[in-house]
Amino acid sequence: MPRSGIPGIVIRRLPLYLRCLTLLAERGEDVVSSGELGAYVGVSPALVRKDLSYFGEFGKQGLGYKVAFLRDSLMGILQTDRDWPVILVGAGPLGHALMHYEPFQRWRYQIVAVFDRDPAKISQPIDDLTVQPMEDMALVIEKRRIMVAILAVPAPHAQNVAEELVACGIRAILNYAPAHLVLPSHVRAAYIAPVISLQGMTYYL
Amino acid sequence: MPRSGIPGIVIRRLPLYLRCLTLLAERGEDVVSSGELGAYVGVSPALVRKDLSYFGEFGKQGLGYKVAFLRDSLMGILQTDRDWPVILVGAGPLGHALMHYEPFQRWRYQIVAVFDRDPAKISQPIDDLTVQPMEDMALVIEKRRIMVAILAVPAPHAQNVAEELVACGIRAILNYAPAHLVLPSHVRAAYIAPVISLQGMTYYL
Repeated sequence: MPRSGIPGIVIRRLPLYLRCLTLLAERGEDVVSSGELGAYVGVSPALVRKDLSYFGEFGKQGLGYKVAFLRDSLMGILQTDRDWPVILVGAGPLGHALMHYEPFQRWRYQIVAVFDRDPAKISQPIDDLTVQPMEDMALVIEKRRIMVAILAVPAPHAQNVAEELVACGIRAILNYAPAHLVLPSHVRAAYIAPVISLQGMTYYL
Repeated sequence: MPRSGIPGIVIRRLPLYLRCLTLLAERGEDVVSSGELGAYVGVSPALVRKDLSYFGEFGKQGLGYKVAFLRDSLMGILQTDRDWPVILVGAGPLGHALMHYEPFQRWRYQIVAVFDRDPAKISQPIDDLTVQPMEDMALVIEKRRIMVAILAVPAPHAQNVAEELVACGIRAILNYAPAHLVLPSHVRAAYIAPVISLQGMTYYL
């Protein structure tokens, strides 16, 4: 089945299955049931089986899934078995924290360049890197064949910067700015929106 | 209708409508159509109308919604028209960045205390606050009637700390740790999971 033929909601659950499988493998578990996977992700065992059936035959009825095999299969499907060089735009406090965010490295998303518009930040060291001016973006993206960018700029700049990124060839944007992005259909965006999450919870309190 | 009777998926879209309305109000717009709201949130105009109809009559067919009125109504419904004191657990680089995260303040989620387990961090200043030992949590939560916590600890500690928070009376956890939390049903959790988001995008590249 072509990549575009599988529902997006299924794709978005795969990383959660993968996280569960990784944890189980670290604990030395050999086998996991669709019920256990479903409990972790918050879906029914039947839905786990249906989700995974899009990609092949991973388990036998009543025997569960082999943890390491399913983990490795999902890593291949999600393409997390390769390095993804990533650029970061925005060298403020959040950008600094993201440079130190261990899960990015662990999952092979490596921030290889940092950009900012602020002259006071440009040329400053940030970990092993040096903050570069936005004008350098196009060259770095092309030279290092970057497809993924992390956006950590103030909300009012997010759309403009995203458009620059797209013009440079970026195809996936992880957006930390509290702003909706309007992007061409070939570009994917995901939003980190803690206030939205908080508001969805405080409604109930 | 009781709060628990409205589907969670509807509740989770309300903050997105609110963000759109806030933006439109800042731009001086008076009226917005369900089509415009839907385009921002990524749902159909019909779904916008259905979502909002759970909460009252906000607009008239063909005339659209009054921006300021709908914004204020949603703020009331989501309880974002009041202050929410919040505690932060984890004073690492991410915790520091969250202390400076302007949208929290703007939306009246104010971090009023920071806790960490690391003796090297305890008693260190962090903005206007001082990092406190975890043992102080119960007293602070009770005294200041805190219901919301932000969790920014390493993944292996997340479940234990979450359980401590729940034992202290916390009812909503915004979890930045890349770990699934198992919590009692009266406690809500939301996950900030950038790796999960990245993996859901890099699948397509």
